[in-house]
Amino acid sequence: MGELSDATGVAVPTLKYYLREGLLHAGERTSPNQARYDRSHVDRVRLVRALIEVGGLPIARAAEVVAAMQRDGLGLSSVFGIAQRAVSERALPDEVRDGDPVDPFGPVPARTEGERLVAELCATRGWNVHAANPGLAMAARVLDTYANLGQRRLHGVLADYADAADRIASADLAAVERAGEETHGDTTTMTDVVIVGTVLGDALIAGLRRIAQEAESFRRFPAPETSAAQHAATREQDPPC
Amino acid sequence: MGELSDATGVAVPTLKYYLREGLLHAGERTSPNQARYDRSHVDRVRLVRALIEVGGLPIARAAEVVAAMQRDGLGLSSVFGIAQRAVSERALPDEVRDGDPVDPFGPVPARTEGERLVAELCATRGWNVHAANPGLAMAARVLDTYANLGQRRLHGVLADYADAADRIASADLAAVERAGEETHGDTTTMTDVVIVGTVLGDALIAGLRRIAQEAESFRRFPAPETSAAQHAATREQDPPC
Repeated sequence: MGELSDATGVAVPTLKYYLREGLLHAGERTSPNQARYDRSHVDRVRLVRALIEVGGLPIARAAEVVAAMQRDGLGLSSVFGIAQRAVSERALPDEVRDGDPVDPFGPVPARTEGERLVAELCATRGWNVHAANPGLAMAARVLDTYANLGQRRLHGVLADYADAADRIASADLAAVERAGEETHGDTTTMTDVVIVGTVLGDALIAGLRRIAQEAESFRRFPAPETSAAQHAATREQDPPC
Repeated sequence: MGELSDATGVAVPTLKYYLREGLLHAGERTSPNQARYDRSHVDRVRLVRALIEVGGLPIARAAEVVAAMQRDGLGLSSVFGIAQRAVSERALPDEVRDGDPVDPFGPVPARTEGERLVAELCATRGWNVHAANPGLAMAARVLDTYANLGQRRLHGVLADYADAADRIASADLAAVERAGEETHGDTTTMTDVVIVGTVLGDALIAGLRRIAQEAESFRRFPAPETSAAQHAATREQDPPC
């Protein structure tokens, strides 16, 4: 376990915690207080750290994701569902719909302006998804919050954001497909791509958005001298990227 | 204060906490233990709740954002910088670069593969941004994590994500520009759009990505009967969106 700690840079007490919580599978016991850990343990610890530190998942969510990855024969869309739920929990409203009676053959009643806008968007774009997709509630909630803050004009971004989401999702699924081709359909590899790409991809997109925003901001609103000075005071470093 | 609580649905102790922490400006005192609160206080409380609950900001970050909104004459790109930093902190690596000596006239040395990829992307796309833009470190960190997890194939999404980011940023800035036109350049309104759109927009994009992913997943990988059954067992509700 000391070697596993060295290989991963994760402290032994943390590794023991991961073992107890089911985030890490047990090593092969070689004596009463010795166990052998292999490459699969190193890989798992790295994945868990990435989900928690870069993806921002709480430990319990990371454990669910890891458990899902070990279930055999789970369809890819189920894996997507699990990865999506894991990263969506924080952003979901408190009053979740799980307890609501829903007519499984009827359309879901849109109860807020945001929900109606999202349902319209799905219809317009041919987005055929289950009502339990966490993105529906996330998107509706943001739109309702815009309206509640008197910023209904921000609803105007929706069509462009949807175009961007389609492009992103297409790249996401192409990566999964490519992984499948390269490994002759190895589901473990494809599942890894789904999990890692979904959980960490949000941060990559958010990062690129910040870069593109600043570039676009300078293009549209060239800063006058004074703002440039204030700008320099606000940011710590000034060399261009 | 009881009325402010009724109007916003936020408990009085929480409102007092916001006052102490500078998230809410003081009311006009009408007697030793009475103060008058107006529409501006209702608006502020709603904004603070949205930043914290929907945007996921810690209280301290929300306070910084609110303080920035009150500073006069701050250029729009500075406001963007503050909003971006507020929502990026969680995703930034621990070893921040602030302490590093940087030649302000030279290019920033790219120290990791991810940093090099992001720098190349900036050059290719003409993204002219400051080295302190938090998106640079966020994006580089995700790319390095992909490689560290043996998922370098996920680097393949970068060009499509960058296209998506450009489209998103263009919509973001168009919303700011539109707000400026509608209010004859009222900087308070424009600042609001920047803050709310930047902080909450990530959740909107993430939500739409989940919807588009599921739709695209069904298109590319139509589930066989058995997976469909497993899928139904994984999701709680089944009616289409």
